[in-house]
Amino acid sequence: MKSALALTALALAACTSVPASLAEAPAAAEAPAWRPVDPENLILLEVPTGTVAIELFPEAAPAHVAQLRRLVSEGFYDGEFFYRVIDGHVAQAGREFDALLTDVTTVPFEAERAVATHGFTPLGNADLFAPEAGHRAGFAVGRDGTQEWLLNCPGTLGMARDDDPASGSSEFFIPLQPRRYLDRNYTIFGRVIAGLEHIQRLPRVDPFTEEETAALFGEDGPLAYQMQQYRRSKLDGNIITSARLAASLPEAERPAYEVMDTTSADWAALKDSKRDYSAIPAFIAPPVNKLDICSLPVPARLVDTAQP
Amino acid sequence: MKSALALTALALAACTSVPASLAEAPAAAEAPAWRPVDPENLILLEVPTGTVAIELFPEAAPAHVAQLRRLVSEGFYDGEFFYRVIDGHVAQAGREFDALLTDVTTVPFEAERAVATHGFTPLGNADLFAPEAGHRAGFAVGRDGTQEWLLNCPGTLGMARDDDPASGSSEFFIPLQPRRYLDRNYTIFGRVIAGLEHIQRLPRVDPFTEEETAALFGEDGPLAYQMQQYRRSKLDGNIITSARLAASLPEAERPAYEVMDTTSADWAALKDSKRDYSAIPAFIAPPVNKLDICSLPVPARLVDTAQP
Repeated sequence: MKSALALTALALAACTSVPASLAEAPAAAEAPAWRPVDPENLILLEVPTGTVAIELFPEAAPAHVAQLRRLVSEGFYDGEFFYRVIDGHVAQAGREFDALLTDVTTVPFEAERAVATHGFTPLGNADLFAPEAGHRAGFAVGRDGTQEWLLNCPGTLGMARDDDPASGSSEFFIPLQPRRYLDRNYTIFGRVIAGLEHIQRLPRVDPFTEEETAALFGEDGPLAYQMQQYRRSKLDGNIITSARLAASLPEAERPAYEVMDTTSADWAALKDSKRDYSAIPAFIAPPVNKLDICSLPVPARLVDTAQP
Repeated sequence: MKSALALTALALAACTSVPASLAEAPAAAEAPAWRPVDPENLILLEVPTGTVAIELFPEAAPAHVAQLRRLVSEGFYDGEFFYRVIDGHVAQAGREFDALLTDVTTVPFEAERAVATHGFTPLGNADLFAPEAGHRAGFAVGRDGTQEWLLNCPGTLGMARDDDPASGSSEFFIPLQPRRYLDRNYTIFGRVIAGLEHIQRLPRVDPFTEEETAALFGEDGPLAYQMQQYRRSKLDGNIITSARLAASLPEAERPAYEVMDTTSADWAALKDSKRDYSAIPAFIAPPVNKLDICSLPVPARLVDTAQP
């Protein structure tokens, strides 16, 4: 049967064998469907696999965003590592050892806040974890009657910490899979809007053990040197060569991103298209008419601003 | 505060900054908590990032499993590629072009079957997509009153196809994120039990376009040669160097895996531990007491059989 297909159909067949489900923006409606990302909220992270663009969300976690902007402006992360990358869980970056964090101030816990009246768009169906789920400014949020919080979907930017909720300072994490059990327990303050595949492709690696850490900071100089060399080699594929705020770059060198407006008709239409695939011939089971909020990241796109 | 911590605490702090949530097997209870994986159901896939172990599930999809065993025994996949790897969606492998599939027989659609009375363990809480969710022999399944189907969680093995449900033959896909909207629409016939990180780390790549395909199979010899070289270079990091059935290897060379028995008390305890983290001091929000079935792959472990 397939041998009778023309070449045109061949290529198509390869593309349709598992229908694409990633967000493709529908044609623009009357209202503006995209909003520009403020360069003051755009972090560009260079890792060996590529460039990762992260949008910060100061309205949700102002202290965390201010802290990250400050650390990035100081070059804090340049040469640091994603030193903990656990498959199916999270990628965590920053300074692994508390002995190197004594100068870094901690930030208050900002995992949730009072529900705001405007700017929230309901998902449109139930969520497994939150009484209500939806979006605010492109970020997935959960809420109950009084509180609202950002969700630990793949690609969100969270602050790691010790037991004390206000002990976070600089080590951030990015979930590689939905980690909804972390909701309301860790402060989320941004999300990856481009290049999440570069995080997913990082080598998996465990933090230093207690013994390795002791050797690294030990008084036996040669052993400490050896551990330093070993660690640098172990984390070769996980280095952050640079982390920059887009606003700090010359205007001509800034990449410009837009994020789909989650109050727009286009976003509503995109969600609907992911709830019911029955218009696609390959789909034969009755549509479930449900959308898992972590399965549809809000689309972002790079805008070419270099054109005159 | 952190500067006062001893080295022992330092290493601990690094490990606890985002609590681990991956499955760790609790201590064995009285009943056997693990079952051996039949070498007749164990596929070993070599890709540039490492070895991937896949358990087949013949009870669910006998024709698909028989087909894969046969193709693997013929070396069908050796030198083929994961030619379509879409971040956040699926990794798809096999022969990209239908012109190369004319000799491969198709298999009947086996996405669902009549509910079996024995061997099903309920998840223990609601599922967003299926009326009921749970596990059978280590595989995540959904069911309604009459039918049961395997779920498109990360790491499951599905068969790609064209619009005709019975058009699948040899191109398989592995979801990189939960893709539950595919449930009941594509036949799932196995799952990755070890090495899913090696799939997650594959370079992302799109299939050949219509124009590229036409050039590859075109009558212009030099252009076809160039396209062949280009494709080989493009997919360098995505090659399947070999796919083998463990049963076909000499007994001494077979890796032996065990999978946690999903009818065991250990599995029930593990699920409970993922619904309520309130015993862990870092968790301050009230537990939601829900588990997303795709967030907890059933644990598998490599057993050292080389010991006398």
